[in-house]
Amino acid sequence: MERVYNFSAGPSQLPLPVLEQAQRDLVNYSGAGCSVMEMSHRSKPYQAIIDTAQATLRRIMQIPDEYEVLFLQGGASLQFSMVPMNLAKRGQTTAYAVTGQFAKKAFEEGKRWGNAVAVVNGKENGFTRIPDITADMIPQDAAYLHITGNNTIYGTTFNTLPETGNVPLVCDLSSVILGKEFDVSKFDLIYAGAQKNMGIAGLTVVIVKKDKLTDDLDPIIPTMLRYKVMADKGSMYNTPPCFAIYMAGLVFQWVEQQGGVAALEKINTKKAGLLYDYLDDSKVFHPVADKKDRSIMNVTFTLPDDDMTAAFIRMATERGMINIKGHRSVGGCRASIYNAMPIEGVEKLVQCMKDFEAGQRD
Amino acid sequence: MERVYNFSAGPSQLPLPVLEQAQRDLVNYSGAGCSVMEMSHRSKPYQAIIDTAQATLRRIMQIPDEYEVLFLQGGASLQFSMVPMNLAKRGQTTAYAVTGQFAKKAFEEGKRWGNAVAVVNGKENGFTRIPDITADMIPQDAAYLHITGNNTIYGTTFNTLPETGNVPLVCDLSSVILGKEFDVSKFDLIYAGAQKNMGIAGLTVVIVKKDKLTDDLDPIIPTMLRYKVMADKGSMYNTPPCFAIYMAGLVFQWVEQQGGVAALEKINTKKAGLLYDYLDDSKVFHPVADKKDRSIMNVTFTLPDDDMTAAFIRMATERGMINIKGHRSVGGCRASIYNAMPIEGVEKLVQCMKDFEAGQRD
Repeated sequence: MERVYNFSAGPSQLPLPVLEQAQRDLVNYSGAGCSVMEMSHRSKPYQAIIDTAQATLRRIMQIPDEYEVLFLQGGASLQFSMVPMNLAKRGQTTAYAVTGQFAKKAFEEGKRWGNAVAVVNGKENGFTRIPDITADMIPQDAAYLHITGNNTIYGTTFNTLPETGNVPLVCDLSSVILGKEFDVSKFDLIYAGAQKNMGIAGLTVVIVKKDKLTDDLDPIIPTMLRYKVMADKGSMYNTPPCFAIYMAGLVFQWVEQQGGVAALEKINTKKAGLLYDYLDDSKVFHPVADKKDRSIMNVTFTLPDDDMTAAFIRMATERGMINIKGHRSVGGCRASIYNAMPIEGVEKLVQCMKDFEAGQRD
Repeated sequence: MERVYNFSAGPSQLPLPVLEQAQRDLVNYSGAGCSVMEMSHRSKPYQAIIDTAQATLRRIMQIPDEYEVLFLQGGASLQFSMVPMNLAKRGQTTAYAVTGQFAKKAFEEGKRWGNAVAVVNGKENGFTRIPDITADMIPQDAAYLHITGNNTIYGTTFNTLPETGNVPLVCDLSSVILGKEFDVSKFDLIYAGAQKNMGIAGLTVVIVKKDKLTDDLDPIIPTMLRYKVMADKGSMYNTPPCFAIYMAGLVFQWVEQQGGVAALEKINTKKAGLLYDYLDDSKVFHPVADKKDRSIMNVTFTLPDDDMTAAFIRMATERGMINIKGHRSVGGCRASIYNAMPIEGVEKLVQCMKDFEAGQRD
């Protein structure tokens, strides 16, 4: 099969030039005599790879010097535990905006450590919109407010960040990081699994304000789950996920070559616009997320019944567009259109929707 | 530079046919229309990859049905915490054989959770030999005895397993798994970072007896650190390190094609023998590890002084043999000769040692 358009929510499509470069260098990296996969993480060539990856990410996100960048393992799911363990004392109040399934998981893990409270819970409206959050809703003694910047499953997003008063803001940006511009200085901690917009599964990027790092943690907390240890060791307290960091570095370079995050945001907005404009007019396809909270990364929509949904997914698949089936908890369809999805892929999907809808009228 | 012989302790040399196959399939895997790196972990093609990897590992290690095989993240270092959290109640006695630096790290992490006691501590002899362990040395109420099967830094190994009485045996096999045969049924839990004999960094394999798995754990333990959750979800509670699992699957297939672990053990024994035989006769190079405890995976040796050590490392590097510098805590040299190191690489190293020694006599 030719290369497909892959609308998977993650792991997801990677930029073709990135894959091609990784392929060229796979057996013998840049004259090093071995693959990146075979390099000692303590070697000079590998140190250059991880340093370059970090420097590039700092440039493209304009990360201020007072933030550490960590390359960790365990996905966002392990951050659900590392955040409270590192930022809150045991039993301390922590605040969560429960705006989707992953937000709920973060909240549940938060309860294992602190006195986690949900300041909003979007479950009653099926997580199709982002409830308003104002500072007076947040306990001002909370160690942090945790939000999920973009809800992959429902296709909703925080188009404006909540005002938290004096409470530090922690954000899971897994499915939108590098897809649009963020002012890092608004956050105390950002984390993101790499397998959507940054690279491949097995790498988690954490961007944390240095004044949040401390060795004064509960002794029960494993060394591997301590941000300060990882920061002090340049993310190499133990062997890091070397190849995943290398791939992320290639993606960061590609982002820069595209004109940076601002340029990609422009294209992403256009891509999402093509889909939402069609959805707003369609008689067959219906958008899931509230208009004001729509994600430019994950576009969710439904069809009138399961048979039509299945027929549409079949038609798209036959045309080389895969993984548009929605998450089982929402049903319908989801088009994840991260940075690496070219506009041609989205145009092809809209054409397919038009053709499908026309077929329904015949 | 041509492909080198890479004696790194890990990440380390991979079989060339494995790298070449990964390279061929990198952009478009087996007609799937995308890279393995881009596949949804919930897709059929990826499920086949992880299932095949597990089935192959089960065959080559003859893992009995009453054991689960888990593909996790975080390296051996995270297992240092997961083992006590899952196998011991908080404050319960746990026993450790401290036979090297990683063993000591496991012991230190064990103290965070349980009443960890060191049944032996090889530090006084510089970790150059494995102290004898008998059942009467192990508290019989301990949740487990933890041993490090092979000590990468010192080049020592448990050539016979300790008798533990009724105490379950837990073993870090990171640097020797698949390098020689082990009877899995002797262990209650085995874990190994993949980046030595199994594949690339970012994947940890855990082989655990099913009767050790329980949901009845302290609520403070993160979901991500619970073996039972990972077992119930087929290692996919969250997105697994997909590409690292794929690479491990390729390595497992390669092991099988070589005639399995028994055949590789034979070659590994021969490879190590070439080095140890030379070291035992040399006037310049001296083996570090006690004869009875020598590792067939990591061969450690010293030269009379730092200048000679540096000169030898330079000579080896010029001949295309890299990463033979010993760990900073031991000094000298270390040749890690895992499965993927061909016998030609070892012969070339021995020849280099001979030439160096001859040069010293001139």
